[in-house]
Amino acid sequence: LRTGEPEVVYGAGKTVDQVLSITARLRQAHPEHPILVTRASDETRAALRSTSEPVTEDPLAAIVAIGALPTPNLGTVAVLCAGTSDLPVATEAAFTARAFGLSVVEISDVGVAGLHRLLAARETLATADCVIVVAGMDGALPSAVGGLVAVPLIAVPTSVGYGAAFGGLAPLLTMLNSCAPGVSVVNIDNGFGAAVCAARIVRTKGALT
Amino acid sequence: LRTGEPEVVYGAGKTVDQVLSITARLRQAHPEHPILVTRASDETRAALRSTSEPVTEDPLAAIVAIGALPTPNLGTVAVLCAGTSDLPVATEAAFTARAFGLSVVEISDVGVAGLHRLLAARETLATADCVIVVAGMDGALPSAVGGLVAVPLIAVPTSVGYGAAFGGLAPLLTMLNSCAPGVSVVNIDNGFGAAVCAARIVRTKGALT
Amino acid sequence: LRTGEPEVVYGAGKTVDQVLSITARLRQAHPEHPILVTRASDETRAALRSTSEPVTEDPLAAIVAIGALPTPNLGTVAVLCAGTSDLPVATEAAFTARAFGLSVVEISDVGVAGLHRLLAARETLATADCVIVVAGMDGALPSAVGGLVAVPLIAVPTSVGYGAAFGGLAPLLTMLNSCAPGVSVVNIDNGFGAAVCAARIVRTKGALT
Amino acid sequence: LRTGEPEVVYGAGKTVDQVLSITARLRQAHPEHPILVTRASDETRAALRSTSEPVTEDPLAAIVAIGALPTPNLGTVAVLCAGTSDLPVATEAAFTARAFGLSVVEISDVGVAGLHRLLAARETLATADCVIVVAGMDGALPSAVGGLVAVPLIAVPTSVGYGAAFGGLAPLLTMLNSCAPGVSVVNIDNGFGAAVCAARIVRTKGALT
Amino acid sequence: LRTGEPEVVYGAGKTVDQVLSITARLRQAHPEHPILVTRASDETRAALRSTSEPVTEDPLAAIVAIGALPTPNLGTVAVLCAGTSDLPVATEAAFTARAFGLSVVEISDVGVAGLHRLLAARETLATADCVIVVAGMDGALPSAVGGLVAVPLIAVPTSVGYGAAFGGLAPLLTMLNSCAPGVSVVNIDNGFGAAVCAARIVRTKGALT
Amino acid sequence: LRTGEPEVVYGAGKTVDQVLSITARLRQAHPEHPILVTRASDETRAALRSTSEPVTEDPLAAIVAIGALPTPNLGTVAVLCAGTSDLPVATEAAFTARAFGLSVVEISDVGVAGLHRLLAARETLATADCVIVVAGMDGALPSAVGGLVAVPLIAVPTSVGYGAAFGGLAPLLTMLNSCAPGVSVVNIDNGFGAAVCAARIVRTKGALT
Amino acid sequence: LRTGEPEVVYGAGKTVDQVLSITARLRQAHPEHPILVTRASDETRAALRSTSEPVTEDPLAAIVAIGALPTPNLGTVAVLCAGTSDLPVATEAAFTARAFGLSVVEISDVGVAGLHRLLAARETLATADCVIVVAGMDGALPSAVGGLVAVPLIAVPTSVGYGAAFGGLAPLLTMLNSCAPGVSVVNIDNGFGAAVCAARIVRTKGALT
Amino acid sequence: LRTGEPEVVYGAGKTVDQVLSITARLRQAHPEHPILVTRASDETRAALRSTSEPVTEDPLAAIVAIGALPTPNLGTVAVLCAGTSDLPVATEAAFTARAFGLSVVEISDVGVAGLHRLLAARETLATADCVIVVAGMDGALPSAVGGLVAVPLIAVPTSVGYGAAFGGLAPLLTMLNSCAPGVSVVNIDNGFGAAVCAARIVRTKGALT
Ligand SMILES: Nc1ncnc2c1ncn2[C@@H]1O[C@H](COP(=O)(O)O)[C@@H](O)[C@H]1O
Ligand SMILES: Nc1ncnc2c1ncn2[C@@H]1O[C@H](COP(=O)(O)O)[C@@H](O)[C@H]1O
Ligand SMILES: Nc1ncnc2c1ncn2[C@@H]1O[C@H](COP(=O)(O)O)[C@@H](O)[C@H]1O
Ligand SMILES: Nc1ncnc2c1ncn2[C@@H]1O[C@H](COP(=O)(O)O)[C@@H](O)[C@H]1O
Ligand SMILES: [Mg+2]
Ligand SMILES: [Mg+2]
Ligand SMILES: [Mg+2]
Ligand SMILES: [Mg+2]
Ligand SMILES: [Mg+2]
Ligand SMILES: [Mg+2]
Ligand SMILES: [Mg+2]
Ligand SMILES: [Mg+2]
Repeated sequence: LRTGEPEVVYGAGKTVDQVLSITARLRQAHPEHPILVTRASDETRAALRSTSEPVTEDPLAAIVAIGALPTPNLGTVAVLCAGTSDLPVATEAAFTARAFGLSVVEISDVGVAGLHRLLAARETLATADCVIVVAGMDGALPSAVGGLVAVPLIAVPTSVGYGAAFGGLAPLLTMLNSCAPGVSVVNIDNGFGAAVCAARIVRTKGALT
Repeated sequence: LRTGEPEVVYGAGKTVDQVLSITARLRQAHPEHPILVTRASDETRAALRSTSEPVTEDPLAAIVAIGALPTPNLGTVAVLCAGTSDLPVATEAAFTARAFGLSVVEISDVGVAGLHRLLAARETLATADCVIVVAGMDGALPSAVGGLVAVPLIAVPTSVGYGAAFGGLAPLLTMLNSCAPGVSVVNIDNGFGAAVCAARIVRTKGALT
Repeated sequence: LRTGEPEVVYGAGKTVDQVLSITARLRQAHPEHPILVTRASDETRAALRSTSEPVTEDPLAAIVAIGALPTPNLGTVAVLCAGTSDLPVATEAAFTARAFGLSVVEISDVGVAGLHRLLAARETLATADCVIVVAGMDGALPSAVGGLVAVPLIAVPTSVGYGAAFGGLAPLLTMLNSCAPGVSVVNIDNGFGAAVCAARIVRTKGALT
Repeated sequence: LRTGEPEVVYGAGKTVDQVLSITARLRQAHPEHPILVTRASDETRAALRSTSEPVTEDPLAAIVAIGALPTPNLGTVAVLCAGTSDLPVATEAAFTARAFGLSVVEISDVGVAGLHRLLAARETLATADCVIVVAGMDGALPSAVGGLVAVPLIAVPTSVGYGAAFGGLAPLLTMLNSCAPGVSVVNIDNGFGAAVCAARIVRTKGALT
Repeated sequence: LRTGEPEVVYGAGKTVDQVLSITARLRQAHPEHPILVTRASDETRAALRSTSEPVTEDPLAAIVAIGALPTPNLGTVAVLCAGTSDLPVATEAAFTARAFGLSVVEISDVGVAGLHRLLAARETLATADCVIVVAGMDGALPSAVGGLVAVPLIAVPTSVGYGAAFGGLAPLLTMLNSCAPGVSVVNIDNGFGAAVCAARIVRTKGALT
Repeated sequence: LRTGEPEVVYGAGKTVDQVLSITARLRQAHPEHPILVTRASDETRAALRSTSEPVTEDPLAAIVAIGALPTPNLGTVAVLCAGTSDLPVATEAAFTARAFGLSVVEISDVGVAGLHRLLAARETLATADCVIVVAGMDGALPSAVGGLVAVPLIAVPTSVGYGAAFGGLAPLLTMLNSCAPGVSVVNIDNGFGAAVCAARIVRTKGALT
Repeated sequence: LRTGEPEVVYGAGKTVDQVLSITARLRQAHPEHPILVTRASDETRAALRSTSEPVTEDPLAAIVAIGALPTPNLGTVAVLCAGTSDLPVATEAAFTARAFGLSVVEISDVGVAGLHRLLAARETLATADCVIVVAGMDGALPSAVGGLVAVPLIAVPTSVGYGAAFGGLAPLLTMLNSCAPGVSVVNIDNGFGAAVCAARIVRTKGALT
Repeated sequence: LRTGEPEVVYGAGKTVDQVLSITARLRQAHPEHPILVTRASDETRAALRSTSEPVTEDPLAAIVAIGALPTPNLGTVAVLCAGTSDLPVATEAAFTARAFGLSVVEISDVGVAGLHRLLAARETLATADCVIVVAGMDGALPSAVGGLVAVPLIAVPTSVGYGAAFGGLAPLLTMLNSCAPGVSVVNIDNGFGAAVCAARIVRTKGALT
C-alpha cells in the first residue's frame, strides 16, 4: 500500500545498532519522506544525530525524525493535555503529526477540574480539523472537549497516575465510555497512533491517491 | 452509638414478611424517627402502604420511609446527575438525605459533554453545604463539578452503561482518580450511602451529641 | 454547539412513553433533521410507527429514525463484519451513518481466517473515505483490514462469543493493540458511536460551519 | 474558585528544577498561604530547604510545606492506622490536614485483629470532627471504626501487602463495600486527598466565603 | 481413602432423576452414614422426602441429608455471620458440620460495624474448637473474630452485596489478606467446604484410623 | 489473648534498626518463647546474629527466630512442594511450624505431573496431623494430595511462574476451586500464615488454655 | 483450502430458519461430508430431524450432524472428564471428533482427587493418539493426565463451578500454567475446537493432500 | 514415562551452581539425549560452555543444549512471527523443536497488517507438519495463518507490547478466541512449551514406543 506516510521504527527494545541499520535501509528505500523512530533511547538518538542525515528530535517524547520534515499543508490538529505528566505522550502525538504533514496547535494547560481554562481554548479549538486529547488518571478531559467541538476527537489514555489508575486502565475505560459524540480511543500512551489517525482524518481523500 | 439517624433496612433479597416484621420491631424500638427501606420491591412497598403507619415512598428509587420525615433543618445537599438513566440512584440519594433531615436540591440535566448546562447550575451549587454527584459510563461529571465547588463532594458511580462500563467499574475508577480536590467515592449505585455521608458532613458537630 | 447532526435518544432502559415524549419534544425543536432512537424495543418501535411521523427502522439493529433521512452526499463509509453474529452491531453502524448523511457500503462476509474473501473486497474498500470494522471473539479483522486501506479505520468490538471472550473484552484489547496504523476504537457493541466518528471524519470541514 | 486552601504540587515525576520553578511562581502568586509539595524526593526536599523560604517537612511521607503553616483553628481530624507499614500514607494525610488548618490527632497502633486497642481509642475518637482511616491488606479497619463514630469517615486503602493484596485493590474493594454507615473512599495511597476531603468537611461553611 | 465422612452430592445442575439415582446407589454402598445433597432444588428435596429414607433438610440452605444424622460427639464448631443475607451460606456450613458429627453453635447477629455484639459473643466463642466466619460485602468479620480466638478460623466469603462486591471477589480478597493469625479461606459461598475443613480439624487424629 | 505462640515481626519494609528495637522490646516482654522475624533481609539477619541472643535462621526463606526453639511436642505437619522454585515458601512454612512447636516432615520433590513420586510419599503423609501444600503455576498439587489424606490441608499458592500465572493468581484460583475435600487456602506466598493455621489445628484444645 | 473436514455451523444465536437455510446451502455445496451444527437448540434439532436428511445428534451436547458420519479410520482420541457437570463439553468434543473421522474412547469418571481411578485408566489412555481433557473448577486434571501420556494433550476448561471459578477463568489459567509437558489449551467450554485440533493432530500428513 | 525426549531444566531463578549440578546429574542419568536449559542467564550459559560437554546455544532465546542435538528426522514445524520483538520467543520454540528432533523453518517477517508477505509464505507453510505462530500485541497472526493451513497450529502469545497489551493478556485472549479452526494456545512467552507440543504432534505414534 502506497500511502505517502513516513516509515516508522518502534525503538523500544531495539539496540542502537539495530535501529541504525533498520533506518539506513529504510532511508535508502524511501528517500523522499522522513523516517520516524519512536521510544528512542538517549543513546539511540545520539547515534542518529552523529550520522550524516539531518535529524529533528524531541527528547521529552524520546522521538526523532531522520530526513527533512514535510511542509505542514494537510490541515490542523489540536493536541490537548493537562500538563507536566501527560506532556511526553502529547508531545509524541504532536511531533508525529508534524512528521505526517499536519499543522499542530498544542494546548497543554487544560483540565476538567478547571473549566475556565478549557473554555478559554475554544477559539483555538475551532481552528482544528481534528482534535487529540491526552489524559491520565480520571481521563475525563475528552468528554469535556468532545462537547465543545464538531470534528473527530481521538482520545489517548496515559499511564500517568497511581493506585486505582492501574497503569492507564482507568482513563482507558473512561474514554471508551465517553458520553460525548465522535470520540474514539487508542492504546494507553499511544500518542504516535493517535497522530497517525489524525493524519489520515485530516488529509483530503484526493491527496491519498 | 446513638446518632439520631433513621434506622435502615436493606430490602433486596428480603421477603415482604421479613421486611414487615423487621420494620415493626424497629418502629417500636425507635418511634421517634423514621425507618427507611431501600431497594424495596413493588410488593414490599405495597405491603408497607397498607399498614397503619404513615409512609412516604419514591417508586423510581424503590425506597420507602415509615413514619414522619424530619423537618429539613440541618443544611443543604445538592444531588446532580445527567438524566434518565442515573435518576434511580440520584433519587435514592435525595430521598435518603431528606429522611436524614437535609434540604435537597436536585439537578438532573447536567453532563460533562454539555458544559453550558453545568455552568448554568453554578449558582444553585453555591447554596449547597455538600454535593453528591451521580454518574455512570465515563463517570466524568464529579471531576468537572469538583472544580466548581469548595464543599465536600461525594461521587456515586452507577452501573448504567454497557460494554467497557463493566457494570460500573469504569466510572468507579474514574472517580477514584478524579483530579479535582475534595472528592471521595462510595460503592457503585450506592445513592443511599452517599446520602448518609452527606448527612454526617452537613449536620454540625454539636447537633450530634 | 450546532453540528447539523441528528438528535439521538438512547432507547435502552426507557419506557415507550418516555421515548415518545422525548422524541416529540426533540422533533418540535429540530424539525429539519431526523431523530434517531437506538436500542429501541419492539414495543417502542411499534409505538413510533403508529405516530403520524415518517419512520425508517432496522429491526436487526433495533434502531429507528423519525423524519426523512438525508440525501447521502457527504461521502462513503464501508462497514465490514464477519457475518450473522456481528450483524446487529454492523447494522446499527450502517443505519446511523445513513442517518448522518453518508453513503454506506456493507461487506458482511469477511473474516481473518478466510483471507481470499477479504482480499476480494479490496476494490470496494478503495472507494471508501472511512472504514468501520466490526468484530467479536478474536477481534482480528481490523488489523487485517488496516493493512489494506489508507483511510481512517474505526474498530468496533462486539460482545459476540463465549468463555474467554469475556463479553467483548478480548476483541476490545485486540483492537487497542492493533499493529495496523490508523486504527482507533470505540466501546463494545457501539456501532452507533463508530458511525458518528465516521460522519465527522467524512464530512469536509467546510460542510460543518 | 477562591477556596483559601494551600496550593499543591504533585512532586512525583517532576525534576528538582521543575518543582523549584513551579513553587517559586506559586509562592509569588499566593504569598498568603503555604505551598505543599507531595511525593517530593530527598533531592527535591533538600533543594527546597536550601531556598530562603521557611519549609516544614515530613521525610516519612516525603511531603514538604513552603511558607508558614496556618494556626489549626478549623476543627479536629483523627488519623488512624495500624502501624509501621501504613505510616507513610497516614502521615501524608496528617501533614496535609495541618497545612489546611486542621488540628490532627494521630492514632497509629490500632488494628481490627486487636479490638482492645481500638476500643481504648474511643475517647480520643470522640473529640474528632472527622476521621481518616488508613489501612492496607484486608482494609478492615474503617468498618470497625465506622461503628464507633458518628462523624464522616474517609477511608484510605494502601498498597501495603503482597500477593492477593494486588497493590491495594483488596483494601480498596473492602472499603467500598464497608457495612458501616458514613464511609467514603479515596484512591489507594492517597493520604493527601483524604486530608483535603477532611478539611472541606471540617471547616464551617461560613469560613469559605 | 476410608474417612468415615458422609458421601456428598453437589445438587446444582443435576436433574431430580440424576440425584435420586446417585443417592440410591450411594445409600446402598454406604448404609452406615448419611448422604448429603447440597444446592438441592425444591423439586429435588421434595422427591427425596417422598422416598422411604429418613431425610433431614434445611430449605434456607437448600441442603438435605438422607439417613440418620450422627451423634455430635467430635467437638464444637462456632458458625458466625452478620445476618439475613449471609444466612443461607452459614446454614449450609452448620448443617454440613452436624452431618459430619460436630456440635454447632450459630451466632448470626454480629458484624464488624457493631463491635459490642461481637464482644458479647466472646464466651460462646471460647467454647468452640474451630470457628467458621461467613461474611459478604467488606468481608471484615474474620479479621475481627480472628483477634478473639486461638483456634483455627475458616473464612467463607459470600456473593452477597452489589457493585464493587463483584460477586464475592471483595470479601474473598479481604479474607486472604486478613491480618489476624490462623485464618484460612474457602471458595465464595462454599459453606459446605468450610464445614468439611472444620470437621477434619475438630475430630481427633485417633478417630480417623 | 494469651495463645502461647511466638511473637512475629513482618520484616519486609522495616529498617535493620526498626527490627532490632522491636525485637528487643518483644524479647523483654515475652522472654519465655521465641520471636520470629519473617522476610528479613540479609542485613537484618546479620544484625540479629551479632546480638547476644541465640538465633536460628533459614536464609532460603529469609526467616529468623530469636530465642530457643520449642521442643516439637504438639504433633506433625507435612509440608509438600514440587521443588526448587517453591522451596522459599515451603521453607518459611516449615521453619514457622517448628517455631510454633510442631514436628515437620518436608517432601519437596512431588508434582502432579509425576504421580509416582507423590504416591511414594503416601506413607509419610499418613503420619501427619495436618498437611501444607505449596504450589505455583497450575497449583494443582493440593487437589491431588487432598485425595490422599483425611487430615486438614492448607494450600499455599506461590508467585512462581510467568505469563498467565499472573503473580500467583492462577494457583490461588485453582486452590480455591479444589475439588478435593478439606482444603482451605491462604494468601499467595504466605508460608508463614499456613504454618500458624497448622499449629492451631494440630495442638490439642487443652494445650491452649 | 481443501481440508476434507465437515462444514460447521455455530448454532448459538441463530434462528431455526437461519440454520435450516445455511445447512441446506452447505449440504448442496459439500454433499460428500457431513454438516455439523453445534450449540443447536431443541427446536433447531427438531427441525433438522424433520428434514429428509439423515441426522445424528447428541442432546446433552446440543450437537447434530447432517449426513452420514465417516468411518472412524484416522486414529483414536481419548476424551476424559470428571463426570456429570463436564459431560456436555466432553460430549461435544467426542461427537465432533467422530464427525471428523476419529475413533473416540470416553473416560468420564476420573478426577485428580481420586488418583486410583485415573491410574486405572492408563491402559486405555495408552491406546490413544491424542488426548482431550475436559475440566472445570480447579482444572487440575490435565496436569495429572499430562504426566501419564506421551501424546499431545488438549485441555478444555469449562464454565462449571461457582464463586472463584469465575465462569471458567480459574481452570483456564490452571491449564495454561500446567507443569506437564505437551499441553495446549482451547477456549472455555470449547469441546468442538479441541476435537478439531485432535483431528488435525491424529490424521497422518499424507491423508491431507 | 519413557518418551525419548530431552531432559529440560527451567533456568530462571536458579543459580549457576544449581544448574551445573542438576545438568551434570541429568547428563549421567540420560547420556543418550541432550539436556536443555531454558531461560539461562549469560553467566549460566558461560559456565556450561566451559565444561567439557558439547553445548549448542542461542543467546537471543537464552537457551542452551548440552550434548549432541538429534538428527532432525521426525518431520517439520514452521515457526512464524512478525519480527524483532517476538524473536526471542520464536527462537526458543525453534531451538527447542530442533533439540526434540524436528526440522524447523523460521518465517519471521510476517504480520496481519501486511498480508502480502504472509501470502508469500504459503508455499513454505505447505511443507510443514505443524505450525507454531508467535505474536504479541493484537495476537491476530494465528487467526490469519489458521485460515491458510490444515495442520495443527499452536499459538504463543508474547508479553511484547505496552498499555492495554497487559503483559500478554491481550494476545492470549485473542488466540483463545481465534475463529480459525485447529488453533490451541500455550502460556504467554512459552515458546518452549509450544515446541514440545509440536514435537509430540509431529513424531509418528510408532516412533514413541
Ligand atoms: N441501598 C443500600 N446500599 C448499601 N447499604 C445499605 C442500603 N440500604 C441499607 N443499607 C445498610 O444496610 C444496613 C441494614 O442491612 P440489613 O440489616 O440487611 O437490613 C443498614 O444499616 C445500612 O447501613
Ligand atoms: N447505542 C448507543 N451507544 C452509546 N451512546 C448512545 C447510543 N445511542 C445514543 N447514545 C448517546 O446517548 C445520548 C442520548 O442519551 P439519552 O439522553 O439517555 O437518550 C446521545 O446524545 C448519544 O450520544
Ligand atoms: N510473612 C508474613 N506474611 C503475612 N503476615 C505476616 C508475615 N510475617 C508476620 N506477619 C504478621 O504480621 C504481624 C506483624 O506485623 P508488624 O507489626 O508489621 O511486624 C504479625 O502478627 C503476623 O501476624
Ligand atoms: N521456558 C519454560 N517454560 C515453561 N516450562 C518450562 C520451561 N523450561 C522448562 N520448563 C519445564 O520445567 C520443567 C523443569 O523445571 P525445573 O525442575 O524447575 O528445572 C521441565 O520439565 C519443563 O517441562
Ligand atoms: Mg484529566
Ligand atoms: Mg457522565
Ligand atoms: Mg473476527
Ligand atoms: Mg487493617
Ligand atoms: Mg461483614
Ligand atoms: Mg504444581
Ligand atoms: Mg478437575
Ligand atoms: Mg501480530
